Amino acid sequence: MSNELKDNKVSKPKRKGSKITPLPITHHASQPLNVVLDTSLFVNPDVRTSLGSNPTEALETFLFLAAQIHVLEFYMPPSIFEELLHFVERDKIPAELLLILHQKPPKKHELKTPAFLLYELIEDIRERVNKGLRVAEKAVRSAESKKADEIIQDMRRKYREALREGIIDSKEDVDLLLLAMELDALLITADHGLIKWAEKLGIRWLFPEKFKEYLMSAIKRTELIKKSLAHEPVP
Amino acid sequence: MSNELKDNKVSKPKRKGSKITPLPITHHASQPLNVVLDTSLFVNPDVRTSLGSNPTEALETFLFLAAQIHVLEFYMPPSIFEELLHFVERDKIPAELLLILHQKPPKKHELKTPAFLLYELIEDIRERVNKGLRVAEKAVRSAESKKADEIIQDMRRKYREALREGIIDSKEDVDLLLLAMELDALLITADHGLIKWAEKLGIRWLFPEKFKEYLMSAIKRTELIKKSLAHEPVP
Repeated sequence: MSNELKDNKVSKPKRKGSKITPLPITHHASQPLNVVLDTSLFVNPDVRTSLGSNPTEALETFLFLAAQIHVLEFYMPPSIFEELLHFVERDKIPAELLLILHQKPPKKHELKTPAFLLYELIEDIRERVNKGLRVAEKAVRSAESKKADEIIQDMRRKYREALREGIIDSKEDVDLLLLAMELDALLITADHGLIKWAEKLGIRWLFPEKFKEYLMSAIKRTELIKKSLAHEPVP
Repeated sequence: MSNELKDNKVSKPKRKGSKITPLPITHHASQPLNVVLDTSLFVNPDVRTSLGSNPTEALETFLFLAAQIHVLEFYMPPSIFEELLHFVERDKIPAELLLILHQKPPKKHELKTPAFLLYELIEDIRERVNKGLRVAEKAVRSAESKKADEIIQDMRRKYREALREGIIDSKEDVDLLLLAMELDALLITADHGLIKWAEKLGIRWLFPEKFKEYLMSAIKRTELIKKSLAHEPVP
């Protein structure tokens, strides 16, 4: 190392004390993490089970847990909230819901998305449209031997699979993505299309089956903070 | 008016002379307008006719006219340029083309598009996907009376119409829109889907059938500027 470089070291600001004090845990608590939730967490049977045997139960469990959490703020776009209400017994859900789960639409006229995503979306759609046509062609060919009604039932399912699965295909999907972008939030959903797009947009996301675990550890952290606050001397 | 406000007037900078001199016409010429061209101008028979009876002739006419224009800069994304080359007799096209018609891809990783457009694109696709399914269903039903091959021919056409017309559906379309956005250019295309999206994005566009007229008046303006330059005293 040259002398010049050594001398440069001298100009660094000196620490005021020798002991390094860690940031108090309360510091984190002052900025809770935003979390955006999708209906699929309460409705999709594969994901919901840890919370309840039906959507209403799952939502009740969530509310019970969320009420004990001070380190997270839960959000849902109104369009998704409306969807959720179709699946639950409304009179069983406590009004607390409105306080715990904030409803907020994204600022869709202020937000911007990277232009290269347009290419990916359009390429994706193009491929799907072609797949849809193949499905339709097969159906027409099989109509020579089977009845039209049977074939159409089967074709509808296959066509929808080809064109919709793993893609963002609704206003509600866009709402979730943009709200998560706007709030720099964690997105929790069981929808693969949404997760794929969260990846593209740099939105953090959580494996949906970890949702309950995540809530449980948020409760633990809240309790830790409460304890540390109780022991702190009043200034 | 208060005295204070009156006094403020005094601090305004005074004009150096009493005569207002108009901006010299050459001033405009120093900043030519950017124009982004689509293949459809040379290929689409409804639009092309004023320029030539086939794509090669149309492109030759364009080059002849464009060479006389100094007030416009012509651009084309390379993807669109490649498309164009499929339609023309390459050995007939003068090499001047490369100088007159700049090839430039858009900066797709820097540009951003307004988020609300995602809603419109996805809503549009959703409707089209449903239309496509209706087309397929009709085809299956008609298969009871007609032959599969005939039906499929017809279905393909109808399906593509339902899913593709009036929509941006290719990488090339996105290239055109983004390049026009980036260069703040005038987009000239005969594609209705592109014009619809130019409207959404605030991109200026020209009725494609006015393309030749537009070139002719750009030639006139170039000549005017040349004359005014010739008469200007050398400083």
